[in-house]
Amino acid sequence: MTAPTRRPGRRPGPSSSRDDILAAARVLFGERGYDKASIRAIAREARVDPALVHHFFGSKEELFAAAMEFPVDPSVFLGQVMAGPRAQIGERMARTFLRIWSDPRLRPQFVGIFRSAATTEQGAALLREFITRTILTRVADTLDLPPLNLAAAAAQMMGVVMLKYIVQVEPMASATEDELVALLAPTLQRYLEG
Amino acid sequence: MTAPTRRPGRRPGPSSSRDDILAAARVLFGERGYDKASIRAIAREARVDPALVHHFFGSKEELFAAAMEFPVDPSVFLGQVMAGPRAQIGERMARTFLRIWSDPRLRPQFVGIFRSAATTEQGAALLREFITRTILTRVADTLDLPPLNLAAAAAQMMGVVMLKYIVQVEPMASATEDELVALLAPTLQRYLEG
Repeated sequence: MTAPTRRPGRRPGPSSSRDDILAAARVLFGERGYDKASIRAIAREARVDPALVHHFFGSKEELFAAAMEFPVDPSVFLGQVMAGPRAQIGERMARTFLRIWSDPRLRPQFVGIFRSAATTEQGAALLREFITRTILTRVADTLDLPPLNLAAAAAQMMGVVMLKYIVQVEPMASATEDELVALLAPTLQRYLEG
Repeated sequence: MTAPTRRPGRRPGPSSSRDDILAAARVLFGERGYDKASIRAIAREARVDPALVHHFFGSKEELFAAAMEFPVDPSVFLGQVMAGPRAQIGERMARTFLRIWSDPRLRPQFVGIFRSAATTEQGAALLREFITRTILTRVADTLDLPPLNLAAAAAQMMGVVMLKYIVQVEPMASATEDELVALLAPTLQRYLEG
């Protein structure tokens, strides 16, 4: 298969192929996990040539981020958390996490990922893959920590943004970044100190 | 209005009135909050006599729990957390929370409350009311703690059950109660110690 082949009835053109690839990526990353969902298999599912996947999305990593609709580059986010003394990593994690959620341009996409994970198996599978690959495995290796400690830290911050931005419970909803960092940083520090 | 009056086209009979009352309660508790949603206003919205609300549900508190479909009596749950030395309250909160979520008869209803809060404004408003009234206000008063500390503790446990039972991320998904209590109890203890 060297040229894109398409099911009858679909709209032609590159924007449709792009959407087909994203839809196929969501299915296969969700069903098989990141490692076992090959570009070749995603291309087959989308009925396009694998070269077109690379053309639209570059690497598999970038395709995964696009399929999740993750609004920031996770490596930039993680870079900010990791860069600096280990003794302040809890504070950096709390602050970085709260800042990206407080940005009104980014929040709708985070809320979308959260909702989709809470309500659909595919959304849950994508978030599971993302947390496992991007946070637990990579960061746990770098920091030489048990993955369960990182999961507890991630759980603390996910619960905070759920209460603050989705359920909107007071006084969490109107707590400032500094108040929350003061409260949460020692928790994260204990999980991340090792 | 002394006798139930009903809109034309609805099914007659007590089970329909009961459902109408629950639907009206969800709307008014969500829109106005617990305190301002009177039994009288809920009865008016449901087009039934207020006496019928008391007949089906007893107190306003019980009506609220029924409207949330909360599967355990919150005062029993909170009683287990509060009963015992303050120095172990973090451990009791972690264990009680994990136990009720691990019960396969209760979990579907908790997951339903969680999903509804993540996806609908009414679900979020009901959970907001529940957390505010049942956890933050009551427990913060009893323990003489800033409500933000309690919200941080609730956020930690909500994030854990989201990762464990909804996103099902490893190693959180298969972590035992004892492993999680060992990891989480010191966090909760710090928030709840005051």
